[in-house]
Amino acid sequence: MRNIIVQKFGGTSVADTEKIKNVARAVIREKNLGNDVVVVVSAMGHTTDLLVKMAKEISDTPSAREMDMLLSTGEGVSIALLAMALQAQGCDAVSMNAIQAGIMTENLHSKARIIDIKTENIFKHLDEGKVVVIAGFQGVTDELEITTLGRGGSDTSAVALAGALNAKRCDIYTDVEGVYTTDPRIVPYASRLEQISYEEMLELARVGANVLHPRAVETAAKYHMPVRVRSTFKLENLGTLMLGVNQMEIQRPVTGVASDLSQLRIVVCDVQDNPGTAAILFDGLAKENISVDMIIQSYARKAMNTNDIAFTIDKADLDRTMKILEKVKENLHYSNVFVDDKIAKISIVGAGMIDKPGIAAKMFRTLADLDINIKMISTSEIKISCLVEQSSANDAVTALHRVFGLDCDTKAVVKGDLPPSV
Amino acid sequence: MRNIIVQKFGGTSVADTEKIKNVARAVIREKNLGNDVVVVVSAMGHTTDLLVKMAKEISDTPSAREMDMLLSTGEGVSIALLAMALQAQGCDAVSMNAIQAGIMTENLHSKARIIDIKTENIFKHLDEGKVVVIAGFQGVTDELEITTLGRGGSDTSAVALAGALNAKRCDIYTDVEGVYTTDPRIVPYASRLEQISYEEMLELARVGANVLHPRAVETAAKYHMPVRVRSTFKLENLGTLMLGVNQMEIQRPVTGVASDLSQLRIVVCDVQDNPGTAAILFDGLAKENISVDMIIQSYARKAMNTNDIAFTIDKADLDRTMKILEKVKENLHYSNVFVDDKIAKISIVGAGMIDKPGIAAKMFRTLADLDINIKMISTSEIKISCLVEQSSANDAVTALHRVFGLDCDTKAVVKGDLPPSV
Repeated sequence: MRNIIVQKFGGTSVADTEKIKNVARAVIREKNLGNDVVVVVSAMGHTTDLLVKMAKEISDTPSAREMDMLLSTGEGVSIALLAMALQAQGCDAVSMNAIQAGIMTENLHSKARIIDIKTENIFKHLDEGKVVVIAGFQGVTDELEITTLGRGGSDTSAVALAGALNAKRCDIYTDVEGVYTTDPRIVPYASRLEQISYEEMLELARVGANVLHPRAVETAAKYHMPVRVRSTFKLENLGTLMLGVNQMEIQRPVTGVASDLSQLRIVVCDVQDNPGTAAILFDGLAKENISVDMIIQSYARKAMNTNDIAFTIDKADLDRTMKILEKVKENLHYSNVFVDDKIAKISIVGAGMIDKPGIAAKMFRTLADLDINIKMISTSEIKISCLVEQSSANDAVTALHRVFGLDCDTKAVVKGDLPPSV
Repeated sequence: MRNIIVQKFGGTSVADTEKIKNVARAVIREKNLGNDVVVVVSAMGHTTDLLVKMAKEISDTPSAREMDMLLSTGEGVSIALLAMALQAQGCDAVSMNAIQAGIMTENLHSKARIIDIKTENIFKHLDEGKVVVIAGFQGVTDELEITTLGRGGSDTSAVALAGALNAKRCDIYTDVEGVYTTDPRIVPYASRLEQISYEEMLELARVGANVLHPRAVETAAKYHMPVRVRSTFKLENLGTLMLGVNQMEIQRPVTGVASDLSQLRIVVCDVQDNPGTAAILFDGLAKENISVDMIIQSYARKAMNTNDIAFTIDKADLDRTMKILEKVKENLHYSNVFVDDKIAKISIVGAGMIDKPGIAAKMFRTLADLDINIKMISTSEIKISCLVEQSSANDAVTALHRVFGLDCDTKAVVKGDLPPSV
């Protein structure tokens, strides 16, 4: 029986040759525990930015196919250097690009999905006792076209490889120490979670935690692959283990609290209350690939035969949304459109809330006690979100974190440049 | 009937994004003449040096396999950027690395030889009207291992591709304007040759001209592929066309004069004149991969039953040669070894000298008139070389260049940083 561990190191972990030597030590440490080790790495630090800069100097609209050819060279450098560093420390190792590792994707440049991994070559090297260092973020089609996976690509490569190789665990090494109950920069008493379920992680990712891309989380859930998020720079810290909800040791009703400032609210007033009016609006948005998050339709005003429709979108989609509203005006006959960009979406997430009634009521009461007005509400099985004034966001998170028993005894050590974690 | 032109651009021609745009213009110019164009490029300017530097920071002895993985990323960048530059100028183009272009090599890292080119993918893109931009210097084995071709690799890639694609011509764009009758820094009246035969080019390359690596010349001769050496920075200049001796328009008895200062002479004195003594010495050198160029064995001194053996080697091989001489001393019983490192090998090269008696005599007379002593002589069908004192080298070259009618009417324009050409 093999014990395969897949380790993934991001761009900051391999930013220079000294850091690559450190990564080699972390790999050898895992190998010395008796595991077969497969390592997935991203391009070094700012390599991707430099490549993009050169491409921009040459063309305003470089083709996606050539951008993929260009960007895939980035991981080509880091895998070779890491394999050399492992060899220099006495550990037999071999680097493999996406073609060699058989990471097959659909034929879609800049955002391809992995459809298969031909693992024979990888197993051949593992059988010879080598550490196998594989380029993340990239793939190849049946036609030998190089593709890249888009955002969250290297994490997804690592988790998909772990699944295909039937690994014991996938470790995502990053510059944060794990997944926190909330953003430690807002709540100093935020605590690191020892475990989190795939579903909770997905909900947290959707409400603003960028520890792990939802794609990677979904891939992990699909393979039931345990994934550990941990710090490259504090190897003694075990980070947070993500796994299936049934495998978790404890289930708290609320696992984390998050605030998301990236959305704005649009209110369309006095829409004609005929069947299909909402469909006209949201079909138009869907066709433009604009994601709508929360939606509320007010009770119809009988006398006028009109109602109001409110919804939230990403701030970046505002201009395109306003154009669509203009286009559908003759069908909807609305009177006014209000845009509210000073909002925050506050969410509590927890797989344990399914069996615990009263969690929502407790959330609403907590906000009411703080005189915070709730503008919209949405719920899923394991998440409750409330839209509030942006100015109240931090107070709301702090109070909810305390009320649901998430405060830890000691203040988290927070560096200023820590990326937002939850 | 297709008209395929293969163009090759070296590292200095693609050193930055502005230069890459210039290269794109040279490619489009060729395409607009009605040709199908395949472009072979090297890594950008100092990319290879930077990659080697990082490897050295990580390991004193990086494995050849990982060095090949690392270095092959260099051309990965330049091919993608050139394809983008072509697209930006309205020319449909596609980049291909060695795997995609099917450049199959033996399984030998850092100095593999091309054994086959699977041209289907290249022809597919040419059929679609695209310019195909291919990574030079790299190849791939049957097992998908990445290899590199070693010195002269990109030139060899280009010529081999031209042969496999049955191209009309291969154009090697470089920073010199062509092949000269001699080094213009020694003889200001050196003239650019319009044509040169493969055989002459090989002889000139062996005696110190580094315009084109002998491997690339040999590959061209094998395929009977016309190769034009020309300047990236002076597109209006047609450079020098290299082709089969039978295809040449004019054959002068002497095409070029070269001096080579890279060798030294070793004289082994009073060697026992028994059968096999020379074999012992030169077997020993061959086993250590030390190339011996000129060899003279003096007439045996009958009374002593000894003779002297003199030979020339590359200066870099001196230490290893002395060790071998030490080792074979008990067999050779020589008295002394003299090393003479102040020598120059002066050569005249010309395919036309085969049918013209008296060329050698004219060379010796010219040197004698200058009071230059000839230490050794070697000849091939199209070359005569004389070993002389290094201090006489420039005088010898200047006189021979004039005597054999190679002086042109105007002084060549020579830049200080021009690499030595012949």
